[in-house]
Amino acid sequence: MIPQNTNWNFPTAIWFGNGRIKEIIDACKQLNIQNPLFVTDEGLVNLAIVKTTTEILKSAGINFNIYSNVQGNPTGNNVTEGVSFYNKNGHDGVIAFGGGSAMDAAKTIAFMSGQTLPLWDFEDIGANWKQADVNGIAPIIAIPTTAGTGSEVGRAAVILDEEQRSKKIIFHPGMLPDIIISDPELTVGLPPHITAWTGIDAMVHAMEAYCAPGYHPMAEGIAIEAIRIIAKYLPIAVADGQNLEARGNMLTASSMAAVSFQKGLGSIHSVAHQLGAIYNIQHGLANSILLPYGLKQNASAIEEKMVHLSTVLGLDNPGTDAIINYTLDLRKQLNIPHSLREIDIDDKYEVEIGLAAFNDPSTPSNAKPVNAKDLQDLFRAALDGKLENL
Amino acid sequence: MIPQNTNWNFPTAIWFGNGRIKEIIDACKQLNIQNPLFVTDEGLVNLAIVKTTTEILKSAGINFNIYSNVQGNPTGNNVTEGVSFYNKNGHDGVIAFGGGSAMDAAKTIAFMSGQTLPLWDFEDIGANWKQADVNGIAPIIAIPTTAGTGSEVGRAAVILDEEQRSKKIIFHPGMLPDIIISDPELTVGLPPHITAWTGIDAMVHAMEAYCAPGYHPMAEGIAIEAIRIIAKYLPIAVADGQNLEARGNMLTASSMAAVSFQKGLGSIHSVAHQLGAIYNIQHGLANSILLPYGLKQNASAIEEKMVHLSTVLGLDNPGTDAIINYTLDLRKQLNIPHSLREIDIDDKYEVEIGLAAFNDPSTPSNAKPVNAKDLQDLFRAALDGKLENL
Repeated sequence: MIPQNTNWNFPTAIWFGNGRIKEIIDACKQLNIQNPLFVTDEGLVNLAIVKTTTEILKSAGINFNIYSNVQGNPTGNNVTEGVSFYNKNGHDGVIAFGGGSAMDAAKTIAFMSGQTLPLWDFEDIGANWKQADVNGIAPIIAIPTTAGTGSEVGRAAVILDEEQRSKKIIFHPGMLPDIIISDPELTVGLPPHITAWTGIDAMVHAMEAYCAPGYHPMAEGIAIEAIRIIAKYLPIAVADGQNLEARGNMLTASSMAAVSFQKGLGSIHSVAHQLGAIYNIQHGLANSILLPYGLKQNASAIEEKMVHLSTVLGLDNPGTDAIINYTLDLRKQLNIPHSLREIDIDDKYEVEIGLAAFNDPSTPSNAKPVNAKDLQDLFRAALDGKLENL
Repeated sequence: MIPQNTNWNFPTAIWFGNGRIKEIIDACKQLNIQNPLFVTDEGLVNLAIVKTTTEILKSAGINFNIYSNVQGNPTGNNVTEGVSFYNKNGHDGVIAFGGGSAMDAAKTIAFMSGQTLPLWDFEDIGANWKQADVNGIAPIIAIPTTAGTGSEVGRAAVILDEEQRSKKIIFHPGMLPDIIISDPELTVGLPPHITAWTGIDAMVHAMEAYCAPGYHPMAEGIAIEAIRIIAKYLPIAVADGQNLEARGNMLTASSMAAVSFQKGLGSIHSVAHQLGAIYNIQHGLANSILLPYGLKQNASAIEEKMVHLSTVLGLDNPGTDAIINYTLDLRKQLNIPHSLREIDIDDKYEVEIGLAAFNDPSTPSNAKPVNAKDLQDLFRAALDGKLENL
């Protein structure tokens, strides 16, 4: 493959280790944050890890407010409300605490806190991001509590436009958190099914990034190693949530997977985003179900890479089929359904899903070119559980 | 392996692609550089690639001066002289153009241009770097012309302290170049032996980083992929210097290898630094000769990793022996000597080399703990070409 023109960036300060949540005070100091807005989601806000963390802030005499009106697929209204709350209370930084939902909402609130243009003007299209006032972006401390989205190392957020019923990507380099506290202990309470869904989400990030066309060997090296780590540790983390070695490796691998998808994602994400927007399906679950179908549809474009990946994973008969079978086995082991019908999705929006998926920002970096009909076929095969139809 | 506390950073803007040297103008603009000091070395300054590049600056009306009094192993005096020249001419940025020597000198000149403390106060020991005035660091554009050192993505430089006859590492996060122009076309003129030495230098970076203890899966993933790329493309780049696919991949892999050694290096570098300081041996050549000896001495600590690496490289009987044999074959193919005696090194400083290598900053991150005697043994085995003595 001949190298093409590419601009590369890699992320930010990551503070990794068990118990490092207590260093949230140092992170605030380092970023000159004296009155943070602590953003999390409605499912997390009453959990012990939030209380423990806010106690650390309190005992250091740091003033803060909590904003937790963030839905599973965070909405434009969640962001707008959060920004008003941020400005009304004179906050000077954001603590993004949670999974992808809280993280994406928090990053977007930090970004929008000092902008004059409306949110959707910053949808990740062309050079929209250049319209932003960089001095209007609040500093961000990101604290992931799931190992999946990797939003903590990303410069974008997925926000639901409720009026248009579509998920939009908001992008700005300044949305990259300034400091990440990556503390495996925060993730031990995740129930097995969320561990499984988010873990496969990370694997899909890495697989789609690895398969994306384009020249980015650093991202590919990171993706391959992320997949190897997830393959080794996800089953352990699901079976034994207290296993800190597995939890730590999953947290690391999920950040790595997200770093790697700077290279691009693909059709699995294109369709999954629509299932989130229309059916409010958990993003990792949608990706988990779609994974083997996406690989199958891309088979002709990814064989060489799948040979290498199978070799790294120690699979027999290296190739795309080996990887597809591996993902089918893994899903079964983790109790993830094989078809979308099993999670009560129907064919009512089949055509709309194909069209909207085609317009999704993940589509241009799919391993091979796909049109709306291809994406509808991908959805349909996953709906019916019929790999053989691809 | 249980995850330990680790702080991670990844690098900077890399502009990769054939012919992108012409974008040096955009890089200057972006960094507000109007009067750059163009730093290169005495071996490069009369080559066509320097003329081509400076013509681009001239035709855009950018004033600059060239500083090229930089030796193969750049010295403290080279830096001090460069800093005087920089300040006397009112420069406002540095263009680091060349291999590791020019790059390290240039980065250090940029760093020292606005410091009040002397150079050696910033040797990479403890928190020495925190004494620096961060506002006194000039912006840096790095343009590598060899695929080896990867100094373009590094936050440190190796500078020879002539009085003490020892190589010292100067470190500051601000020494990381702000923009890298990674243009494979600049490297096509490298003669085969330099291509080979610098290429194996990159491989040694990645191998020692991969083998270093510590938890840094992202660095390891990058290292493994860098080794795979070098194994594939280095023989091609040596055999056919005009092959831009091989040149481009080597340039990328050498940056990746250097990114990965944020995790640490090891005994091969510890000894190679001394050979540079005492005998002025080209750094890549020293590393190339030492490589299999270093692996052999570390064998007990690296077997599991070498099994994985051999698998990735498609070697039979995966393990440390497979990798050692692979490096021996590669060296033979690239006409690299097997012993240090073949490049006129003798045993006169044997003890000193062991002691100085022990104090080298690369030693603490060696795959297994080594003392001065171990490092002397490593030198001795490489001197005599006797792998079996380790």
